[in-house]
Amino acid sequence: MTMASMVLRSRPTGLPTPENFDLVEGDLPRVVPGAALVENRYLSVDPYMRQLMDDGWALGEPFEGRSVGRVLESADPRLAVGDVVFHRGGWRTHALVDANDPQVRVLPEMDGVSLSMHLGILGGTGLTAYVGLVKIARLEQGETVFISAAAGGVGTAAGQLARMLGAGRVIGSTGSAAKARYLVEELGFDEAFNYRDAPVVDQLRAAAPDGIHVYLDNVGGDHLEAAIGSLVDHGRIAWCGAIAQYQTDSPPAAPRNLYDIAGKSLRLEGYLVREYGYLQQEWTDLVVPRLRSGQFVATETIIEGFDHIVDAFVGLLRGDNVGKMIVSVEPS
Amino acid sequence: MTMASMVLRSRPTGLPTPENFDLVEGDLPRVVPGAALVENRYLSVDPYMRQLMDDGWALGEPFEGRSVGRVLESADPRLAVGDVVFHRGGWRTHALVDANDPQVRVLPEMDGVSLSMHLGILGGTGLTAYVGLVKIARLEQGETVFISAAAGGVGTAAGQLARMLGAGRVIGSTGSAAKARYLVEELGFDEAFNYRDAPVVDQLRAAAPDGIHVYLDNVGGDHLEAAIGSLVDHGRIAWCGAIAQYQTDSPPAAPRNLYDIAGKSLRLEGYLVREYGYLQQEWTDLVVPRLRSGQFVATETIIEGFDHIVDAFVGLLRGDNVGKMIVSVEPS
Repeated sequence: MTMASMVLRSRPTGLPTPENFDLVEGDLPRVVPGAALVENRYLSVDPYMRQLMDDGWALGEPFEGRSVGRVLESADPRLAVGDVVFHRGGWRTHALVDANDPQVRVLPEMDGVSLSMHLGILGGTGLTAYVGLVKIARLEQGETVFISAAAGGVGTAAGQLARMLGAGRVIGSTGSAAKARYLVEELGFDEAFNYRDAPVVDQLRAAAPDGIHVYLDNVGGDHLEAAIGSLVDHGRIAWCGAIAQYQTDSPPAAPRNLYDIAGKSLRLEGYLVREYGYLQQEWTDLVVPRLRSGQFVATETIIEGFDHIVDAFVGLLRGDNVGKMIVSVEPS
Repeated sequence: MTMASMVLRSRPTGLPTPENFDLVEGDLPRVVPGAALVENRYLSVDPYMRQLMDDGWALGEPFEGRSVGRVLESADPRLAVGDVVFHRGGWRTHALVDANDPQVRVLPEMDGVSLSMHLGILGGTGLTAYVGLVKIARLEQGETVFISAAAGGVGTAAGQLARMLGAGRVIGSTGSAAKARYLVEELGFDEAFNYRDAPVVDQLRAAAPDGIHVYLDNVGGDHLEAAIGSLVDHGRIAWCGAIAQYQTDSPPAAPRNLYDIAGKSLRLEGYLVREYGYLQQEWTDLVVPRLRSGQFVATETIIEGFDHIVDAFVGLLRGDNVGKMIVSVEPS
């Protein structure tokens, strides 16, 4: 058996291309005491990885990313053969996992929960939606919520969560008519629009003539400016930290109406989901029963085959996905 | 006895000039049931008034502004002759005050507290500092605070309050070397700089090489950008609402580093002091004993004579004042 890894050959400019990467094959790593060999089953591709390609990720080294796999061989009692493990050694088919690494977790196998969900709705993606709406924006019943990148992993979770929390009206922005239809017809958004159709400021005002109370921001730029314009007094913006990380070349222009934050007593608050790991269990307990009952849908776009991981990543940056973008690796 | 009022003759462009105003003399108003005639003693001029000159204030009408005076004649038992009264009928020497107006308050005469203080340190100006640092930014002991317009009414109160709350380091920005010296030598600021000397970003970084935790913003623009750059993770900006009101022509450019709010988990929160009247007593109880003991200084610039009220207002907009700008009217 061999292991395949995707390594960075050269630093991309703008959107990465297959030429920026090498698929490297090699022997499986030897299992050393305190570690286990995991065969990866699902790999996560996420926007924050784009910035790491500019500086954090060394050329020639396999990338680190969140993944879920099964233990093939173990030299530590905490990781048994057959266990399903969450770890961060992604962008390869197999990983040697350190049982002492606090980020390594053995996952319970739960009825109605697919392993891929640990990379999306049950992982940092779903938690980003939960922290943003509940802890940062402190959404209250009856309020109107606006969500940008609404058909993405965070957005699809956030829209359903807002509904569940009793939001009066849930509005999403996305990049195609088909995605907008999906949000309304399948996920219970009250309204969704394609931001390419007309200025966001006009479409948001039409969708929320009485204004919005909360904005969950994934994109900044014209969406942020439109949201500031539509927010009622004491409105809140939860600003997911990832946005700053993958606006690599030049960030979108700052909103021209920023001073309305002072005039309307708004709150603009950034957050990084990695600081909220202590809420992971609370979020899991909330959402798993609803995934089982079908009240909550784990929207995922799964790309089959490890050799398509670069395509999946580029597709994510282009917005090809609906829900969380995940790569599946067939078990050997 | 006659009454003098200052009325708006024409709408100013940029800085007002004396030609924009008329000083009108007339008979004292007749005291009707439920009202009292007040002889004004101190009048407030405030930045928010500049915007009212563009739209809210009718031409030919006397202006409304906060003032403190003494009851000369009364037709209501709640306002006795000789009482000191806070009311909003400013920009005139006398006012007919409605005893039913919830904004009209009889003020206790307190040892060590001059009547003018009710327009500054004990009024909305001091309360703006209190709400900003305590309720919005939630300043904690040992933290570094940066205050813009630090020699103004809000700034002088905020710097002393930050010191009192146990801030580790208090830094102020102001418009002259003399004011900067005053802040350090008289009010206990650790450091103060003249923003005209060098870029704010450089002066702030030199004054707070380890970064700042809290920024109390009165000005926006380059100060806001510098503060965002210097704020540590989870830093807070309390943004006083008045800023949006008197940036009449074109607001300062939005900061180019706005996306750091997401990346550093910052909180930018606007507020309007008029929504926090319920804290007035709490603030008074906190500061009055300290004014008496000399631990707290009520910094004021008092311009003598009602006929100089326009000069006082223009001087305020130009930054001539140290502390709260107030006009005194000699009792007849």
